[in-house]
Amino acid sequence: TVSRLQGIPPTIFTTMSALAARTGSVNLGQGFPDVDGPPEVIAEAVAALQGGANQYAPGPGVPALRQAVAEHQRRHYGLAWDPDTEVVVTTGATEAIAASILGLVEPGDEVVVLEPYYDSYVAMLQMAGAVRRPVTLRAPDFRLDLDELRAAVTPRTRFVLLNSPHNPTGTVLSPDELRGVAAVAIEHDLTVITDEVYEHLTYGVEHTPVATLPGMAGRTLTISSIGKSYSFTGWKVGWATGPAALVGALLSAKQWLTFTSGAPLQPAAAYALTSAADYPKELAASLQARRDLLLTGLADAGLPARTPDGTYFAISDITHLGWEDATAFCLALPERAGVVAIPVQGFYADHPDAGRQLVRWTFCKRPEVLTEAVERLSAAR
Amino acid sequence: TVSRLQGIPPTIFTTMSALAARTGSVNLGQGFPDVDGPPEVIAEAVAALQGGANQYAPGPGVPALRQAVAEHQRRHYGLAWDPDTEVVVTTGATEAIAASILGLVEPGDEVVVLEPYYDSYVAMLQMAGAVRRPVTLRAPDFRLDLDELRAAVTPRTRFVLLNSPHNPTGTVLSPDELRGVAAVAIEHDLTVITDEVYEHLTYGVEHTPVATLPGMAGRTLTISSIGKSYSFTGWKVGWATGPAALVGALLSAKQWLTFTSGAPLQPAAAYALTSAADYPKELAASLQARRDLLLTGLADAGLPARTPDGTYFAISDITHLGWEDATAFCLALPERAGVVAIPVQGFYADHPDAGRQLVRWTFCKRPEVLTEAVERLSAAR
Ligand SMILES: CSCCC(=O)C(=O)O
Ligand SMILES: CSCCC(=O)C(=O)O
Repeated sequence: TVSRLQGIPPTIFTTMSALAARTGSVNLGQGFPDVDGPPEVIAEAVAALQGGANQYAPGPGVPALRQAVAEHQRRHYGLAWDPDTEVVVTTGATEAIAASILGLVEPGDEVVVLEPYYDSYVAMLQMAGAVRRPVTLRAPDFRLDLDELRAAVTPRTRFVLLNSPHNPTGTVLSPDELRGVAAVAIEHDLTVITDEVYEHLTYGVEHTPVATLPGMAGRTLTISSIGKSYSFTGWKVGWATGPAALVGALLSAKQWLTFTSGAPLQPAAAYALTSAADYPKELAASLQARRDLLLTGLADAGLPARTPDGTYFAISDITHLGWEDATAFCLALPERAGVVAIPVQGFYADHPDAGRQLVRWTFCKRPEVLTEAVERLSAAR
Repeated sequence: TVSRLQGIPPTIFTTMSALAARTGSVNLGQGFPDVDGPPEVIAEAVAALQGGANQYAPGPGVPALRQAVAEHQRRHYGLAWDPDTEVVVTTGATEAIAASILGLVEPGDEVVVLEPYYDSYVAMLQMAGAVRRPVTLRAPDFRLDLDELRAAVTPRTRFVLLNSPHNPTGTVLSPDELRGVAAVAIEHDLTVITDEVYEHLTYGVEHTPVATLPGMAGRTLTISSIGKSYSFTGWKVGWATGPAALVGALLSAKQWLTFTSGAPLQPAAAYALTSAADYPKELAASLQARRDLLLTGLADAGLPARTPDGTYFAISDITHLGWEDATAFCLALPERAGVVAIPVQGFYADHPDAGRQLVRWTFCKRPEVLTEAVERLSAAR
């Protein structure tokens, strides 16, 4: 293994989805819906395919999508971005994360990150030679400790890599928590890279974009995508917004990673943001009901989970069950119960003990699938 | 600018396509066809979109496409790859190049590369901390000098990054040239990364894949895509084939760059490779006629170009015209003539003098577009 990837295992999502397929398990692991987004958005993609949108999109993305992203940010959050210089389209949020890190972070730069980490953060920070400075969200509440945040900053800190609503914990950072982040960022002149792909998937709480806090728009690069908000995870159409210098830095790396992608899907994503603007809210309402269905079923199965305020993931603490760790539990679960879940352990790369007994379940599946899963879990109890 | 990208300008293709759009010029710069690939392949993408292929594809690619790629390699070249471990789907050849370099090349490793370089090679090698060892293809013939190749290898050399049919020169490496490469690779135990996206676009000569040479299959990672062979450059569906260790190394980086992409386009790409298998040959025949149309017109316009054996690019030497360099010529051309072309200069990063007077034109456009372009060039003479 090349040194920049030394010690980084294959993404757990591929491993667990392959295990689900092999064992015929109900897959509550990798977060992808089993119902596609709006048919009229699919119809737009069909029209684009048949209408000649099959050659290279411009490197920064098709103008209609950059315009739609800017308009979305304005309408929802009052943020004003120039579609030509302050918006860039990416191959999902994943590429936006990779390219922003490769385009901005110098070897040796310290980056404050919320732990547990989405696995690509760890990999990309290592590939960039960055030093992780964790701020750990701990069971049972998974709240941000602002003292811990302040203590994580050193003179070498340059960035905060944020994620709210937070995967895998489901925590939606509160305005108070975010003000604390903003204060630290401004005091230490830090750039914030914030992954907000679950921006519309919150339950009874509001998502606050980091960029809307006073003093933050000029130092924040915000990442989102069509995947989660519109249930098209396979399209891998994402974007980043922020000041031209940050967007330009991302683009300077991105152009060499993929150049561009999804030419016939980009116009459909633009349509989704403008003409199917209510879909994400309806999806959130539906997900909230499914969240509650899953949580009730998990509790009945002896696997009570904390109620997440956002994302489509819930976490159970399995300490009381006496397994060595969540990985052992999750590897045995397909055989034992015919269900796949994700051990959270690996996401606590710096404090593995904090995640040793945590298991993540997704509720972005049809109600009957969730019911089948919890019945299997109850039966295997 | 972050140090890993220091000194790397934005991709010339974005710059020149933006200039074409702004000036209303005929764009013979960036290589993308103005006629889409087979309608029945588009119909397959439509069926995939409407049939539910809208969530994450597996990280290594959808099984049908990996199978189709393996079968394509077997049928055309007699190469046998296991679709599960020796084929990986990427976001176009661009991502395959990025991920193979990030997944394989250590900082300080020397990489022998054909100059002029496709621009992403230079950028990605720099991002990986590699040391370029050029072997320069020079006007007027752009052949590979095997003595120069042998001289470029040092004890620190680990890789050869090859590209045949070669962009921008149109050179198709001959069996003799490739045997020379193979001898060097075997003698010095080098891994060859070979970009063969123009594999089917040759004119009167046969493309020889590096991996088919004796002793090479085990040390060669071969990259190709649907973009050029099937005129769907905007789909950005590409792949790499090779021994599991090399494919696995690519995948270990790729999973963090995009994870996966183009879920509804991958099944259509599989269909193209299996059920529209004759299309690339027909495309090549059509391109050969368009090549000849362009070459005749360029000669009439006082811009004679060498006849390329492959790719859809031809190069004119403009020394006799008295411009300071090709960049000045190409930047003035939209105003002077309403045509956009690519200065090759920038691709000769190590020997800029060798490319100073070279201009690249694409002939992947409709005949009437080529005619319009050469008429404009003649008029502006
Ligand atoms: C990129 S695959 C994983 C999907 C996802 O975001 C998750 O399950 O956390
Ligand atoms: C990736 S954009 C450039 C397209 C191309 O391959 C070329 O014009 O050389």
